[in-house]
Amino acid sequence: MNAKHFTSVPLDKSYRLMNHGPTVLVSAQHDGVVNVMAAAWACVLDFGQTPKVTVVLDKVTRTRELIEADGMFALQLPTKAMATLTVNVGTDSAKDVPDKLARYGVTTFTAPGSDVPLVEGCVGWLLCKLVPEMHNQQTYDLFIGDVIAAWADERVFRDGRWHFDEVPDDLRTIHHVAGGQFFTSGAAVQG
Amino acid sequence: MNAKHFTSVPLDKSYRLMNHGPTVLVSAQHDGVVNVMAAAWACVLDFGQTPKVTVVLDKVTRTRELIEADGMFALQLPTKAMATLTVNVGTDSAKDVPDKLARYGVTTFTAPGSDVPLVEGCVGWLLCKLVPEMHNQQTYDLFIGDVIAAWADERVFRDGRWHFDEVPDDLRTIHHVAGGQFFTSGAAVQG
Repeated sequence: MNAKHFTSVPLDKSYRLMNHGPTVLVSAQHDGVVNVMAAAWACVLDFGQTPKVTVVLDKVTRTRELIEADGMFALQLPTKAMATLTVNVGTDSAKDVPDKLARYGVTTFTAPGSDVPLVEGCVGWLLCKLVPEMHNQQTYDLFIGDVIAAWADERVFRDGRWHFDEVPDDLRTIHHVAGGQFFTSGAAVQG
Repeated sequence: MNAKHFTSVPLDKSYRLMNHGPTVLVSAQHDGVVNVMAAAWACVLDFGQTPKVTVVLDKVTRTRELIEADGMFALQLPTKAMATLTVNVGTDSAKDVPDKLARYGVTTFTAPGSDVPLVEGCVGWLLCKLVPEMHNQQTYDLFIGDVIAAWADERVFRDGRWHFDEVPDDLRTIHHVAGGQFFTSGAAVQG
């Protein structure tokens, strides 16, 4: 992991990593088994000093099983350069393709004090503790997490703001529409 | 309402209106009282023939009261041209600024067979029936809706796809970060 591009984000600013609605990678581990999937349906649920997120995780996914077993997960923001990787880990299940992380070039690392895998090359990471809500999980595949730590690539996000205009387009976050088509995060506009 | 830019979207394609994570306007009415607010925390929850959405609605908002009373609401996608309108209806409450819709130039219309207000000038609309989940609503301000009809401005969304590259930038959807700063939906990329 390139430590110089992994900078802590204050909890009360962490919602800004996801507020603009990017597609995320979801990662987790349990008993040494690591997995990563993609999710377009992830959203901020609360901000301030007690930030929360939601993410929808289908029952067939290995990553969901790991999260249910371990109680921890991470959401992280892949870049335009990672669009194909994102489609690949979102399409194939580790249940069918056991070596999918290696096959698709996904490398993970961990932050100090945590064993939750974080995906290299992303530009924002949110470490989350599952808030067990069995009705939501069973009925809607809807998972809630308390964000307990966050980091960003400080070339792209610093001082609580994104700086996409100052970096190559390959570092922009991506927003999935359907069928592997994404939009990158575009021009800034002040309302 | 300019009927020629208001075209039905099949239910099984309606998730594509929100899949890329845009900021939405939330509208509702009860007993003839109409209101509109902004929400960055809205997300797809399910697709196919039973599409669902989530949206986070603070307890202090008038729009939430209308939704709780009426059981219906709409989510719709404002454009770059509506960024200031979006900030304004998201900042001021009708409780403090009773004429906020008129003051900020918000005009609504209704679809045939429905009395839910829809906001003029948007490029996508999802008509939703509240799925009552009191624990989520009280604990997390989290509301779930069944999408029962959807429409789009066919200049921008048709055949199940966005066509932002074929229209003026003013018709792009917007993604709120913080403090009135948005990103527009940017360049397409195939993963």
